[in-house]
Amino acid sequence: MKKEKGLLIVLSGPAGVGKGTVCGALRTKDTDISYSVSATTRAPRTGEVDGVNYFFKKKEEFEEMIEKDEFLEWAKYVDNYYGTPLENVKKTLNEGQDIILEIEVQGARKVKERYPEGVFIFLMPPSLAELRKRIEGRGTENAELINKRMTVAREELDMMKNYDYVVENDEVEKAVERIQAIVTAEHCKQERLIEKYKQLVEVE
Amino acid sequence: MKKEKGLLIVLSGPAGVGKGTVCGALRTKDTDISYSVSATTRAPRTGEVDGVNYFFKKKEEFEEMIEKDEFLEWAKYVDNYYGTPLENVKKTLNEGQDIILEIEVQGARKVKERYPEGVFIFLMPPSLAELRKRIEGRGTENAELINKRMTVAREELDMMKNYDYVVENDEVEKAVERIQAIVTAEHCKQERLIEKYKQLVEVE
Repeated sequence: MKKEKGLLIVLSGPAGVGKGTVCGALRTKDTDISYSVSATTRAPRTGEVDGVNYFFKKKEEFEEMIEKDEFLEWAKYVDNYYGTPLENVKKTLNEGQDIILEIEVQGARKVKERYPEGVFIFLMPPSLAELRKRIEGRGTENAELINKRMTVAREELDMMKNYDYVVENDEVEKAVERIQAIVTAEHCKQERLIEKYKQLVEVE
Repeated sequence: MKKEKGLLIVLSGPAGVGKGTVCGALRTKDTDISYSVSATTRAPRTGEVDGVNYFFKKKEEFEEMIEKDEFLEWAKYVDNYYGTPLENVKKTLNEGQDIILEIEVQGARKVKERYPEGVFIFLMPPSLAELRKRIEGRGTENAELINKRMTVAREELDMMKNYDYVVENDEVEKAVERIQAIVTAEHCKQERLIEKYKQLVEVE
């Protein structure tokens, strides 16, 4: 029987919504999903580890990888580059293994263009007010940067329509459960299974 | 905010695949889903309770309900009528409550015509050989009836394409988990949530 390809799961959403926290929590729970580590030129935050949270790159290194077409997607976002190295994603999917990307909204749009059969999940704060509280709570950004991010976030809300699913991040545990349910459900989709079952009937 | 309608979840699949067992197991686990009790003219099996497993009707009673258009769907299947009383389904969905129907494949097709926005789940045996084993194991059917059911089942396999999801019933617990995941995922679908979130942004 032909080996099924893994699912490319794209987790995105507005800045400050908690993509990293949710993805981190998912990582501790579910062993059936691989995690793509993004590359970025932004400075590491406290506790972030190179090669685990991100591959932290110098601007020049990143631009060289762009030149060599080594990204599934890349984007410049609030003065920094973010990108998904292509090689590992391709390899993982071909092995029949699911892989999740946690990326900015701009990057997700580019992945959608290149890989529309992916499962696109938009992580959503309960409201924009909650978003502001979260960004302020982080305490590592100045006011100007926060306002910049808020403007971007309003635009990003408009982008929900490009996603397959919207997961509210009211509680991290609940958000993680919803994402796990989405992955399970996607594996049960009729389009993915019908060929497998047709084979079984033929074999009889 | 406008009250969201509940999901109509339709669980169907070939005769003998274990729809009743899976639905029964789901019933003991999940309190957020209502269950529609079908009406039928077939004789109760051991342990089946009128009004719980089915409303057991005489042929004449059932035909009177058909006349009065009191079914969401009804079908004649291996010489017996099966049908879903309409009233309770409508009421439940309008209250924002999910409801699951466990019905024969013919009935599911009719529900699909009348309510295409339902979530259609096809419960699937691992193979037709397994299906035969299960039917024989039940021990209440004669050989002729089993062969009749097998022929019907082969036709039903062709009907998978009319469903949104296919859930393999390799283990009852796993099948139940998959169905629960599908319901959770359906509630996260972008189309269902986008209006709610647009409202939140307007309110800011």
